Amino acid sequence: MSEVCKEVPQLAKAMILLVEVFDKYAKKDGNADSLSKGELGDLLKAELGEFTSFGDKTKVDEFFNQLDANKDGTISFQEFMVFTASLTMLIQEMTKKV
Amino acid sequence: MSEVCKEVPQLAKAMILLVEVFDKYAKKDGNADSLSKGELGDLLKAELGEFTSFGDKTKVDEFFNQLDANKDGTISFQEFMVFTASLTMLIQEMTKKV
Repeated sequence: MSEVCKEVPQLAKAMILLVEVFDKYAKKDGNADSLSKGELGDLLKAELGEFTSFGDKTKVDEFFNQLDANKDGTISFQEFMVFTASLTMLIQEMTKKV
Repeated sequence: MSEVCKEVPQLAKAMILLVEVFDKYAKKDGNADSLSKGELGDLLKAELGEFTSFGDKTKVDEFFNQLDANKDGTISFQEFMVFTASLTMLIQEMTKKV
């Protein structure tokens, strides 16, 4: 039953996109396991800049400190997923009000 | 600077997909706020069936009970996001080993 060109279902597509977005920015400094503050800033600006004020450096600093739950100075994929899940819940709340 | 047809960035696209997938199945019974056991079964089979054994009804029962953290008999969007985040972390782990 396997077809090479079968369309990927929406949920799988969303999860693959999340892995790809993290990887795209995390690998910039050679360490693909985590986001540095600069990489997080690039990600927020490019991926969410249109919707937020993440172009602002102070905001990125503040945000980085909030996301870095274990205070190791980098954002792991798990920490990134906590952020993404929270933001997605906010978006879902907003769509319910429309 | 706003352009109507501007391409949606990857991260925003992933989050919108997650909201849409939940809504698509949750609204089937008229209550779009949560997934019933039947709706979760439909979602898992259609969205992840190719990758898992979620076609199996016993597996869906077991899974539903695990996801329903507050034991109210339905899966809220928050409970769905916990599942999605966990699964995405598994996928990310797998891609690192490739």
